[in-house]
Amino acid sequence: MVSPDRLEQLLENIRAFVRERDWDQYHDPKNLTMAVASEAGELSAVLRWVHNDEADERAKSTHRGALEAEVADVAICLLMLCDRVGIDLVRAAHAKLERNREKYPVERVRGKADTPSA
Amino acid sequence: MVSPDRLEQLLENIRAFVRERDWDQYHDPKNLTMAVASEAGELSAVLRWVHNDEADERAKSTHRGALEAEVADVAICLLMLCDRVGIDLVRAAHAKLERNREKYPVERVRGKADTPSA
Amino acid sequence: MVSPDRLEQLLENIRAFVRERDWDQYHDPKNLTMAVASEAGELSAVLRWVHNDEADERAKSTHRGALEAEVADVAICLLMLCDRVGIDLVRAAHAKLERNREKYPVERVRGKADTPSA
Amino acid sequence: MVSPDRLEQLLENIRAFVRERDWDQYHDPKNLTMAVASEAGELSAVLRWVHNDEADERAKSTHRGALEAEVADVAICLLMLCDRVGIDLVRAAHAKLERNREKYPVERVRGKADTPSA
Repeated sequence: MVSPDRLEQLLENIRAFVRERDWDQYHDPKNLTMAVASEAGELSAVLRWVHNDEADERAKSTHRGALEAEVADVAICLLMLCDRVGIDLVRAAHAKLERNREKYPVERVRGKADTPSA
Repeated sequence: MVSPDRLEQLLENIRAFVRERDWDQYHDPKNLTMAVASEAGELSAVLRWVHNDEADERAKSTHRGALEAEVADVAICLLMLCDRVGIDLVRAAHAKLERNREKYPVERVRGKADTPSA
Repeated sequence: MVSPDRLEQLLENIRAFVRERDWDQYHDPKNLTMAVASEAGELSAVLRWVHNDEADERAKSTHRGALEAEVADVAICLLMLCDRVGIDLVRAAHAKLERNREKYPVERVRGKADTPSA
Repeated sequence: MVSPDRLEQLLENIRAFVRERDWDQYHDPKNLTMAVASEAGELSAVLRWVHNDEADERAKSTHRGALEAEVADVAICLLMLCDRVGIDLVRAAHAKLERNREKYPVERVRGKADTPSA
């Protein structure tokens, strides 16, 4: 007997939450990408005034609750979007990692961050 | 015997990708929230000029590949962030849905979208 | 006698606001880009559930106050950032328009929106 | 004789750029808020791997060109949005600063960054 996947269980919870509120009518892919952007903005707000050197410590203390709430909101909106358009997010992420392995070969990028082009 | 969780397998793939490139040094929580915001921005770019009425159809045709790539990037950065600070994203999302159920009771919000306060 | 530029007057107001609160210590360019992302996210929230066909009307009625507040926040953070690093925003925008004129020649893009590459 | 305002001149340049390409049809307020979010995401990308302690220096050297280009894009989209819905951005920013002066009184916030609520 297979135990249900954790992500699938979360999707079921999200679908029920939306269905109870009859919010599907607002959840076309365009609106949901805006929701993701909006929640990612709230996530940015949490650590915007925190110095890099303090970020790990703050993420485990004073800013913990806010971080948990905001990563959750981003994930919920992202999963709503994937569910709406039929994307398997885990499979898409594996596929993207493969493309990134080609785009950023170890011998060229090891230990170096991307520098933007002007 | 329990089969490994799909999300846990994805996390293992992400950790290997980062370790191979020695990029952990850049991945403090502050930088990773910026990465999430940046990828959410790229996701917004995909559908910005697409009309609501065409969004579902486009998400399955001309804009499919770009959507898959961008939701994947958001998910990868979000999981890196959660892994760094020790947040179980699925558990955090369930907890947030419970809070949202209290914040948006069915009898008050059914069928109605949020209106912003000025 | 030259009347002072409107944008310069706004910058003076912003500088005074920050100086009164001794907030310059938090306003390095990295933190301010996060502030811009955060405010752009709040701006996204305003119209996320509004249909394209209603956006113009709503922007002038129910959602007016929220829109004004959020575009203002984005502008304030953007000007703080430019002031910190010595960028003349108006000059930079003219320069970018010139580059965009080359990147998007009229004969190729007239009437057509960008389509994302996958 | 009054010399034309710098911001008004920039608006004229933006309007001409859009008119030449017949892009007004895509520029309803919803699409333009997505464009702002998308450009703010690109701005976030510029400094995401740069440490706070190096941000001022990098913003004037290696990352200068990218920063100029991205703040310009945010400003252009923001001005397009304001122009579309009839918001005077400078006036809106002054008004928001007045509200922020009430929301963040000097005696309470001096020298202290906002901490997020959980």
